[in-house]
Amino acid sequence: MTTKLWLVLVLAAFLLGALANSQSPDGTSALMKLEREFMQAAADHGSQGYLSYLADDAVELPNGHAVLTGKAEIGKTMGFLDNPDNHLFWTPAGGGISSCGDLGYTYGSYEFRSRDRDGKLGSTYGKYATIWRKQKEGSWKAVLDMGNAGQ
Amino acid sequence: MTTKLWLVLVLAAFLLGALANSQSPDGTSALMKLEREFMQAAADHGSQGYLSYLADDAVELPNGHAVLTGKAEIGKTMGFLDNPDNHLFWTPAGGGISSCGDLGYTYGSYEFRSRDRDGKLGSTYGKYATIWRKQKEGSWKAVLDMGNAGQ
Repeated sequence: MTTKLWLVLVLAAFLLGALANSQSPDGTSALMKLEREFMQAAADHGSQGYLSYLADDAVELPNGHAVLTGKAEIGKTMGFLDNPDNHLFWTPAGGGISSCGDLGYTYGSYEFRSRDRDGKLGSTYGKYATIWRKQKEGSWKAVLDMGNAGQ
Repeated sequence: MTTKLWLVLVLAAFLLGALANSQSPDGTSALMKLEREFMQAAADHGSQGYLSYLADDAVELPNGHAVLTGKAEIGKTMGFLDNPDNHLFWTPAGGGISSCGDLGYTYGSYEFRSRDRDGKLGSTYGKYATIWRKQKEGSWKAVLDMGNAGQ
């Protein structure tokens, strides 16, 4: 082969290498699908299902309470998901993902059905944002979760 | 040069290309610095300073209100920053960034100083999260901003 051809090959290899790291085909839709699986896990398995989608170093920013740092600390506050009268539904409205496909976010609205003090079933509504990071072993986990009031 | 040496060069170029896209030296600190500049812009220039750090397609998730989509819609609600009695301070506590350095987030706590109905100055406190995306022209802009109560 000529030197010129080799140079073209070297350049092509460099560009392919750069490209390999920047592809994320339809990554946002994948995160929105993941968000629905996250909700289903919480519906099926309560707090343990919810926690299985959190990174070990996740932070939770609950409305009206202090920041919770780490999955263990967050876990202590999630027991309400194990009460069969409580149902938490959330629906992603949008999101985004990094070009290299390792960090992304989703946001949307939630409905929390539960019994009030008189035992009557009712719903409260709000919004949320979840930030996702791809873990070293390949799965996506939530690294930040936050909710507030109003839809 | 021998074919073997060329092959080594091709491989090295591929790896360098891949690496070029995954470097983000100290990106999270840079975002936390940006967050402080964002606050300063709002302190110095009110709503216009605040809005200058938002992407055109940003979403705002204000506590107690519906989602606001797009900088223009968000702008309609930011006039309170132009009242000289109002002061919004926020301090990043942590964050993260994608390996290719194009998407990141910061979160922390805020203090909002203002006058109550009786004209008395006081503060309310809360938490926030900001999601940042590097724009095509190279600057970072907030694509999602959310706040809630409790520190």
